[in-house]
Amino acid sequence: MTRKILVLPGDGIGPEITAQASRILAACQAHGLDVEVEEALVGGAAYDEHGEPLPAVTLDKARAADAILLGAVGGPKWDKLEDLAKRPEKGLLGLRKNLGLFANLRPAITYPQLASASSLKPELVAGLDIMIVRELTGGIYFGQPRGIEVRDGQRVGFNTYVYSESEIERIGRVAFELAQKRGKRLCSVDKANVLEVTILWREVMEHLAPEYPDVELSHMYVDNAAMQLVRAPKQFDVMVTGNMFGDILSDAAAMLTGSIGMLPSASLNESGQGMYEPCHGSAPDIAGKNVANPLATILSVAMMLRYTLGEPTLAQRIEDAVGKVLDDGLRTADISSEGMRTVSTSDMGDAVLAAF
Amino acid sequence: MTRKILVLPGDGIGPEITAQASRILAACQAHGLDVEVEEALVGGAAYDEHGEPLPAVTLDKARAADAILLGAVGGPKWDKLEDLAKRPEKGLLGLRKNLGLFANLRPAITYPQLASASSLKPELVAGLDIMIVRELTGGIYFGQPRGIEVRDGQRVGFNTYVYSESEIERIGRVAFELAQKRGKRLCSVDKANVLEVTILWREVMEHLAPEYPDVELSHMYVDNAAMQLVRAPKQFDVMVTGNMFGDILSDAAAMLTGSIGMLPSASLNESGQGMYEPCHGSAPDIAGKNVANPLATILSVAMMLRYTLGEPTLAQRIEDAVGKVLDDGLRTADISSEGMRTVSTSDMGDAVLAAF
Ligand SMILES: CC(C)[C@H](C(=O)O)[C@@H](O)C(=O)O
Ligand SMILES: CC(C)[C@H](C(=O)O)[C@@H](O)C(=O)O
Repeated sequence: MTRKILVLPGDGIGPEITAQASRILAACQAHGLDVEVEEALVGGAAYDEHGEPLPAVTLDKARAADAILLGAVGGPKWDKLEDLAKRPEKGLLGLRKNLGLFANLRPAITYPQLASASSLKPELVAGLDIMIVRELTGGIYFGQPRGIEVRDGQRVGFNTYVYSESEIERIGRVAFELAQKRGKRLCSVDKANVLEVTILWREVMEHLAPEYPDVELSHMYVDNAAMQLVRAPKQFDVMVTGNMFGDILSDAAAMLTGSIGMLPSASLNESGQGMYEPCHGSAPDIAGKNVANPLATILSVAMMLRYTLGEPTLAQRIEDAVGKVLDDGLRTADISSEGMRTVSTSDMGDAVLAAF
Repeated sequence: MTRKILVLPGDGIGPEITAQASRILAACQAHGLDVEVEEALVGGAAYDEHGEPLPAVTLDKARAADAILLGAVGGPKWDKLEDLAKRPEKGLLGLRKNLGLFANLRPAITYPQLASASSLKPELVAGLDIMIVRELTGGIYFGQPRGIEVRDGQRVGFNTYVYSESEIERIGRVAFELAQKRGKRLCSVDKANVLEVTILWREVMEHLAPEYPDVELSHMYVDNAAMQLVRAPKQFDVMVTGNMFGDILSDAAAMLTGSIGMLPSASLNESGQGMYEPCHGSAPDIAGKNVANPLATILSVAMMLRYTLGEPTLAQRIEDAVGKVLDDGLRTADISSEGMRTVSTSDMGDAVLAAF
């Protein structure tokens, strides 16, 4: 059965990095992977063409795909769009919501070859391997009511942070199951000393715990979690949290590793369909210059092979190829260091292909 | 005119660290500072005694005081209290709200003597000096509606993130004015690509900017701000943000410095009345052991002398005394390092007093 993959290059460096990842995908096809690959527009690129960040044609193709590979969306060009619904980010948020991609897996791993690139002391990040599980289709990102309106003669902005028990339970199970397959420690992050919605969050996590007796569940307030990530990130195995806290903590954790240009992510729904994308953003400042790091996107293909396509052997081949080019001393500008060879986006793609 | 100071030791290490700070306050009195000092209960300690984390008698004394010195509140003992309104944290939140302490100033400074204690590489934090201005009486901490209720047969938790133009303007002015007195750069942190309330936030900041032509205003999304703090914290001068983002970012920034046991904070209202407290928490694990670091609380007294009592000379004397004990190699356990002398809470108090 031929599976369908949709590539959404998006904005900024998106097209350059997905181009390299698509070459790896083609190499996998040459090695017997039975997939059909299509492309479509999303984000600012889609807005420019169709006046919408998530045109119906893109959404239809996304619905029909088994897996999606996304580059990145957004950029200053569209930041001034008055109508929030037209902004590039809404393309991404619309995909998440419409496809029910509620489980965002955001690994924060330090590549041994890159440990010195971290801003943290090497001993604090060497061997770091955290998995942050972020709820992606609920919370304050999607809560109603929301808006800006006039009250008592002045404008007031408001958003709603909301979770139901079933939403919390669903993401909780994903996190507990991942913890079972890893270090068996799960830290749930909330602000239960202030926010009612996270009191419920904590209760549901506690309620699930007896079903996973081999996993040790702990709770941490979000402010403390931010501190602990900075102080001693290796204390964590799996972390689970809501959409907004997850946005902040997963980016901070990724940056800690010094490997943010290397980190893929997966966003999964209940039927295993997934969207895969690099953790980094669209980096408009370096777009079009053939200097961006394509490795996070290439590794997103590996994650796709593992989580959606059930091809762990091909996934491993990609990961090994990336390891080899790093061992060989090749670096894009973002991860370059003394004594290493700084290469372009396409050179890096060439090198991974050659090592594949 | 005799000014009134209320000391609220609170919970955990609160009583030990405020005890040392009170000794410094007494030394200031001996040097001519005309203040009356009273004590009262807040947080878990107040709950245990009065069944309320903020008893009326404490609130009355707080209202009558020119300045408040707070230790810390909270601890596992009260974490299981079903009624959120009774939790220690509500004592703190009640003080902030009732006294209108909307402007929270959270410096993140690296003490030269402690730069090596940071988890970041020394060159990234040496000389770091950021001021985070956090809105403290609004946002999702206080927004209505809030609660947990049954909808369609399941429980749903919800909170409201809300700001009015006047609330944003008020905190914006504090931040712009601080930036004018410092490095003249202000970074406003929001999530304007997703949350309407922060679109309004950004608009109001933009609207204020022309009144402060000497200050360079920039905007950053909160996820990026968390990354940038980790990557290159010295890029920031003053940051301004809402209550929840400020909670997370100010703690992360404080921890970055390696000096969190050293950092004071101020929470001010429109009439200059202020509450002063260490940035760190109540550390229940080490409470009562005479090992906690009292320096952040002692430096909170210095901040009080500067911001509310108009006594910069005395403030400087305290800061110089703290600098001297650090130069002399004295360290409490949290900041201890090789070759330094590890001392107790009260020894540290003795040393600062002797150097005063
Ligand atoms: C682009 C933006 C809407 C998005 C988010 O906040 O979720 C991004 O920061 C992410 O983490 O994927
Ligand atoms: C104790 C808690 C309610 C408080 C907050 O979240 O504001 C604390 O973390 C702080 O930053 O002062």
